[in-house]
Amino acid sequence: MVKLVAIYRKPENVKEFDEHYHNVHAPLAAKMPGLVKLEVNKVYGTPMGESDLHLIAEMYFETKEALANALSSPEGRAAGKDLMGFAGKLVSMHFAEAL
Amino acid sequence: MVKLVAIYRKPENVKEFDEHYHNVHAPLAAKMPGLVKLEVNKVYGTPMGESDLHLIAEMYFETKEALANALSSPEGRAAGKDLMGFAGKLVSMHFAEAL
Repeated sequence: MVKLVAIYRKPENVKEFDEHYHNVHAPLAAKMPGLVKLEVNKVYGTPMGESDLHLIAEMYFETKEALANALSSPEGRAAGKDLMGFAGKLVSMHFAEAL
Repeated sequence: MVKLVAIYRKPENVKEFDEHYHNVHAPLAAKMPGLVKLEVNKVYGTPMGESDLHLIAEMYFETKEALANALSSPEGRAAGKDLMGFAGKLVSMHFAEAL
């Protein structure tokens, strides 16, 4: 199993971010072909206090190829375009494989 | 379910890091009381090319309290001490709750 991991730093306006994320972005991401599971994790702290992160979203796919195909699909491109618009400066994306 | 997420940036010496991580650190982390699952994900890229990250490790606990108790346990403190020794400059730790 592989994951597309989206790590979001804290936005200036959390309420506005969360509304767009949950009402617009997550539904777009959920349409990607081959997506097995979308798990959204809200960051609530660190061992040292407050975290600089806000969300960690994990999109699971069966294979590396399925993940790559999802991103290049029309649904993946639509989700990517939306992402850059509302969170381009906050997000980093990573491909990860469970060991 | 909550997770302790450890995000590791790429080490200078990957082989040395991986040996310590898998042979010493992961077994220490796995001893934490209340740990439901330890999942280690190897980062292999990003949509734009190479990632600055190396590993994302996720330690699952039933509740926020169980996570906090694990970190303050003798086993948690031993894992934390080891972590700071081999990866203090590479790692960031975050508490996250699945939405």
